[in-house]
Amino acid sequence: MLPLGGLGEIGKNMTVVEYDGRIVIVDTGLMFPTAEMHGIDLVLPDFSYLRDRADDIEAIVLTHGHEDHVGALPYVLREIGMPPKIYGGMLTIGMVRSKLDEHKLGDKAPLEELPAGEKVKAGPFELELVHLAHSIPDMRGVLIKTELGSMLMTGDYKFDQTPVDGRPADISRLAEIGSEGLLLLCGDSTNADRPGVAPSESSVGPALLRQFALCEGRIIVTSFASNIHRVQQVIDAAVALDRKVALVGRSMRKNFNIASNLGMARAPQGTFIQPREIENFPDERVVVVSTGSQGEPLSALRRMANNDHRDVQLRAGDTVIFSATPVPGNERAVNETIDRIYEIGAKVITAKDAPIHASGHGSREELKLMLNLTKPRYVMPVHGDFQRIRLHAELAEMVGIEEENIFKGRNGLPLEIDDSGARFGEDLHVGTMYVDGVNIGDPEDAALRDRREISADGIFIVVVTLSGDDGSIVADPEVILRGVAFLDDADGILEDLKDLVEDSLEDAADTGTREPDLIQEDLHDAVGKFVWQRLRRRPMILPVVIQV
Amino acid sequence: MLPLGGLGEIGKNMTVVEYDGRIVIVDTGLMFPTAEMHGIDLVLPDFSYLRDRADDIEAIVLTHGHEDHVGALPYVLREIGMPPKIYGGMLTIGMVRSKLDEHKLGDKAPLEELPAGEKVKAGPFELELVHLAHSIPDMRGVLIKTELGSMLMTGDYKFDQTPVDGRPADISRLAEIGSEGLLLLCGDSTNADRPGVAPSESSVGPALLRQFALCEGRIIVTSFASNIHRVQQVIDAAVALDRKVALVGRSMRKNFNIASNLGMARAPQGTFIQPREIENFPDERVVVVSTGSQGEPLSALRRMANNDHRDVQLRAGDTVIFSATPVPGNERAVNETIDRIYEIGAKVITAKDAPIHASGHGSREELKLMLNLTKPRYVMPVHGDFQRIRLHAELAEMVGIEEENIFKGRNGLPLEIDDSGARFGEDLHVGTMYVDGVNIGDPEDAALRDRREISADGIFIVVVTLSGDDGSIVADPEVILRGVAFLDDADGILEDLKDLVEDSLEDAADTGTREPDLIQEDLHDAVGKFVWQRLRRRPMILPVVIQV
Repeated sequence: MLPLGGLGEIGKNMTVVEYDGRIVIVDTGLMFPTAEMHGIDLVLPDFSYLRDRADDIEAIVLTHGHEDHVGALPYVLREIGMPPKIYGGMLTIGMVRSKLDEHKLGDKAPLEELPAGEKVKAGPFELELVHLAHSIPDMRGVLIKTELGSMLMTGDYKFDQTPVDGRPADISRLAEIGSEGLLLLCGDSTNADRPGVAPSESSVGPALLRQFALCEGRIIVTSFASNIHRVQQVIDAAVALDRKVALVGRSMRKNFNIASNLGMARAPQGTFIQPREIENFPDERVVVVSTGSQGEPLSALRRMANNDHRDVQLRAGDTVIFSATPVPGNERAVNETIDRIYEIGAKVITAKDAPIHASGHGSREELKLMLNLTKPRYVMPVHGDFQRIRLHAELAEMVGIEEENIFKGRNGLPLEIDDSGARFGEDLHVGTMYVDGVNIGDPEDAALRDRREISADGIFIVVVTLSGDDGSIVADPEVILRGVAFLDDADGILEDLKDLVEDSLEDAADTGTREPDLIQEDLHDAVGKFVWQRLRRRPMILPVVIQV
Repeated sequence: MLPLGGLGEIGKNMTVVEYDGRIVIVDTGLMFPTAEMHGIDLVLPDFSYLRDRADDIEAIVLTHGHEDHVGALPYVLREIGMPPKIYGGMLTIGMVRSKLDEHKLGDKAPLEELPAGEKVKAGPFELELVHLAHSIPDMRGVLIKTELGSMLMTGDYKFDQTPVDGRPADISRLAEIGSEGLLLLCGDSTNADRPGVAPSESSVGPALLRQFALCEGRIIVTSFASNIHRVQQVIDAAVALDRKVALVGRSMRKNFNIASNLGMARAPQGTFIQPREIENFPDERVVVVSTGSQGEPLSALRRMANNDHRDVQLRAGDTVIFSATPVPGNERAVNETIDRIYEIGAKVITAKDAPIHASGHGSREELKLMLNLTKPRYVMPVHGDFQRIRLHAELAEMVGIEEENIFKGRNGLPLEIDDSGARFGEDLHVGTMYVDGVNIGDPEDAALRDRREISADGIFIVVVTLSGDDGSIVADPEVILRGVAFLDDADGILEDLKDLVEDSLEDAADTGTREPDLIQEDLHDAVGKFVWQRLRRRPMILPVVIQV
């Protein structure tokens, strides 16, 4: 069992389960880049381990449709090839099909719904999905049986006793799994730092209704587009107060359509209006459901706040309800969005002000319940940074699991289990992969080092044209700079720099240096030194020697 | 009264107070850049309003020594010139002198300690500093009197009844100011969202001592270096448990030295050890006081955690105590540092786990107390984002100030007061200024746009060499790329691109185009189109035409 992502971090979950040379992959998630990753579009798990193992893969199993569990799938399929089967719950398969269609992979992908409780063979493995609750419908734990024993990857879960769809986590099956004897539990650690039990998703609806009832103007609710039950509850509250609903933002409309086609979301005839129709209705008759709960720069909410959305502009009198909390790392972007809304004079309600959000991840008492239900021999906390993994491990000790049977892992460190026990194998030192445009590569790519360098201090390009015969200068040197900031005295410096370049070339000619590489190196050093002395900056220096 | 910074944001506080054509400046603060500001070193208020007004400035008054109140001073002095006087409390002047010395401005700057309660004339103004409490000693509100009336800029404050130096905020003087009649109060809004009263700084010492007593290995405490009283309390706790103290990090050592020379901080003989001596003492006899509480990439703590510090490496058995909370925006950097420490296996204690931090800003009851003590006719909340400014304005209404006398401002919007009342004047639309290396400029500088462009997709440089006589190609085109990611098929693309360039030049020759600018433009468009088709990226395209 080899975690490729999701340990020591929150995101890009991906796990390889191997038995007798055959492989099942559970989840293929991604992460979103930070501003430090200049221009990178997506961050993927480093799945190079699978490159030579394509033929050994029996199946990919997806726990649920969130990007941090399925987002890397198009790239895995493209780079590794198609496995015999890709399994998941109904909504998961629906969402993944739509995603693969966008990547033109939908036709070829062997997507198959595997109903919870149904067992299926895949080489030496028997696979079964176990229904659990989360902030997206059709979340399934993955039970993998081999001759050695069985393991359960929980995926993201909570024990919601009153979920919106009336289908709580299948506690009976978990208890059965415990009785049958579970070898290894890999459990979600995301909220291992939160005491008690997470509030039920169905507690959010009444809280939203109470807030809506207090609003006199337009209501804009932002939440995760994939949280179908949340969006459903927003719609229900709007309908109860005789307000129309406009879905704004591409993913909001897309996910609702998928769920609606699967019969998982609904609204009375005449509830929905188009975003462009909003201005035709009185403010007190409108609810807008929007993407942008994480402050994403291009999201509908951020555009509305910046007066940059085609259909909706926020104004005083509006109430913006954040039915979501910032994912760690997004605090600043969310706060910026909120403050921009305050600046406009609109009202803001967040989960700090009213119980209008419920986490999709179980708190400490739920993690203990999972451990006590499934009674695993070995435990490996997953889906968490090192702090949460340690906290989850402590919970396992609390419920009586021996310390030596609890494995605090890291990405690339395989856990090997055989008849004689479990132990960590040899560290494979996996990293991450970056997606930039259409290409995939590794973060140490020279291009990204160059971007870092240029984005810090800019670039100086020096073009010199020399005669191929005698090395004499045949055209004035050209000095071009880009990204060099606040250079008031550019002309003076450029003139001095041209003199310097000519001096450097004359020195080269005097010493008989004719090799372009050497001339380039000399130029690089001379220009770099000059720029540092004059500007106290270290831009990239790029000398180009043209021989005519 | 014109705020140039600190409204709609937390940081770079700077206010211009003008009467009868004469000016007093209160504070000259800065902000630190975000990763989106490629390579920018510092963010300053836009003080271009002062460029033509240098002769009108009577004094700069500094409330306290924090960077968000004094950090822009070297740049203001350099760009605008020296004012007749720069006033502040004793520690403030000591810290600013050290800062100006580094900028080689210390000799010329007319720095002068103005003791609290002493009145001084500055043109048509009478200035007086009022002692308040904050997370740095010698914090002073600024009372500015003119014939029209008086205004109080509070600076950052709390009403700490038991501060470490035994000098609580001068409530009596504030009450007097209220009785004398205050025209305008500009009050700190930083914690306008927190109920109650901030805990006293002196409550932190005993909490630290309790935590220290539980530690068996080394203790590393990180806090703001300027919080002299916090560092003093850490030293006191260490001494009480017979541990040696090492100060690690440049600003930690510098600030302690300044405070110590002014008699504001002390330790028994033999308490301090050098960082390089730490390994000579048993783990249980050492306390390290370190910079890095905000997760700063180059800070001592981050280096220790990354095994990159000359003297100290963190290890299992260590306890790292964060005696500070993340400034908004720094959450991710702090969490990364904390998780790295967890990964090492060391223990982490934050302000969530124990009361080992106290904010330096007053909570809601303290803001109300300030309003009730000083009984201002007009109120303008400052030092806060728009949310906190609105919350502070609501507090002013609660204590009975008329809504029309409360001014929710923004940077660059002057508040004008005369005998007939107060009102906002014409918006001056001030922005921000950036410091990059030695130069100051504006964020819309083309260099920064270029950096953003190159850092997103890289740069293609195409050099063509043409005969000055007939425009024919005299050397092979050179194509150089930097920062273009994951280009596996670089050679194929580069060859095709060279062909394309030659075609484009031949077209130009056929149509008789000889103007380098036009050739450059054609090349730019042709290469840009080619790159987009092949790579789906839009790097910067930089054609260079050399004529021989």
